[in-house]
Amino acid sequence: MGEDNNNVVLLDFWPSSYGMRVKIALQEKGVSYECRQEDFEAKSSLLLEMNPIHKMIPVLIHNGKPICESLNIVEYIDEVWNHKPSLLPSDPYKRSQARFWGNYIDKNVYSRGKKVWNGKVEEKEERKKQFIECLKMLEEELGEKPYFGGDKFGYVDVALVPFTSWFYTYETLGNLSIEAFVPKLVGWTKRCMEKQSVAKSLPHPHKIYDFALKYREAHGYE
Amino acid sequence: MGEDNNNVVLLDFWPSSYGMRVKIALQEKGVSYECRQEDFEAKSSLLLEMNPIHKMIPVLIHNGKPICESLNIVEYIDEVWNHKPSLLPSDPYKRSQARFWGNYIDKNVYSRGKKVWNGKVEEKEERKKQFIECLKMLEEELGEKPYFGGDKFGYVDVALVPFTSWFYTYETLGNLSIEAFVPKLVGWTKRCMEKQSVAKSLPHPHKIYDFALKYREAHGYE
Repeated sequence: MGEDNNNVVLLDFWPSSYGMRVKIALQEKGVSYECRQEDFEAKSSLLLEMNPIHKMIPVLIHNGKPICESLNIVEYIDEVWNHKPSLLPSDPYKRSQARFWGNYIDKNVYSRGKKVWNGKVEEKEERKKQFIECLKMLEEELGEKPYFGGDKFGYVDVALVPFTSWFYTYETLGNLSIEAFVPKLVGWTKRCMEKQSVAKSLPHPHKIYDFALKYREAHGYE
Repeated sequence: MGEDNNNVVLLDFWPSSYGMRVKIALQEKGVSYECRQEDFEAKSSLLLEMNPIHKMIPVLIHNGKPICESLNIVEYIDEVWNHKPSLLPSDPYKRSQARFWGNYIDKNVYSRGKKVWNGKVEEKEERKKQFIECLKMLEEELGEKPYFGGDKFGYVDVALVPFTSWFYTYETLGNLSIEAFVPKLVGWTKRCMEKQSVAKSLPHPHKIYDFALKYREAHGYE
């Protein structure tokens, strides 16, 4: 598909790891786009119109048509801008494994991570344990490969790497060292950050930390 | 891919709507397979080996290699046995919409449905309302089309239709008439049941009902 006839708008909220996934995928494919920040206290009528079911970012609007849910968007981007190397492997079995891990990340990383930086104090140790268990599972899947995608950065890398911009927050507010538990995963994080698509799409960890502090002040601990 | 070199085993548990999805997809593609029933009280060592992360059915074992998570399996089947018509649309935008609705079904139908047949009595009305809301959303997406996939039975149909084998249980134990709220969706159910792939893969609703009664006896209400 040529670039000429493309109008690409991303409805985003900058600290969202899900929004970052879409930005990385668009960068990987060299797609230029307009990024509109949503206000969670006052969602835009465009967001409500484009994602009436979930009313959540990210939404990719491509030539006026919305695509919702971050990994679904990543897969859409991969299929539409197919003149650039694919993020998903071409082999159906490897694709199924990549989708499996994308799903695992979706079901576990955000929810467990949030309980580390925003959980009740009395349950914190158990919650940290569960979060670390999940990272260890991912580190095991990474193994000795440079990327989850093997020799090249791919779909699972896109799915996971945005959460690493939250690691400083998890560590500081959860009082833990992620590197002590999953050193290879932290090594992978650094490799990913050398990629422009990632470095450009992830906010500075201190900015995320400030956001998390303000969030806790405004919403209280869960 | 030819049929000759295919060894296909499905680890299943017969009342599982997720397992039924895989059976329908395999039937649609004309793939012969061996179906092994798992015992939930004593999971087989094969299941634990093939799905060490979630330890859950369904697992498709294709030439010794496992694929887990039902919609992931359906997509794998669609990609591998591609000599038969595709379950997912070929257009990337339509594919993204199908995946969106598959995801919506995964997040909502089982969990809301279970609360109808197994929920605490005092919250039952609210739970029924939420379940019906979800079915109405799906009916709206179906619209006037014969199938979610349009003129032909496809991915979203495969994702949803297994749950209709539970409708009798939801209705009887939840004391509600699904048809009164979503008549078009019930019409779609009947259309799907005319397909051999569906009729062969769904247990009789009374058998599901007996299972649900025994489940409640053994595990109590949630």
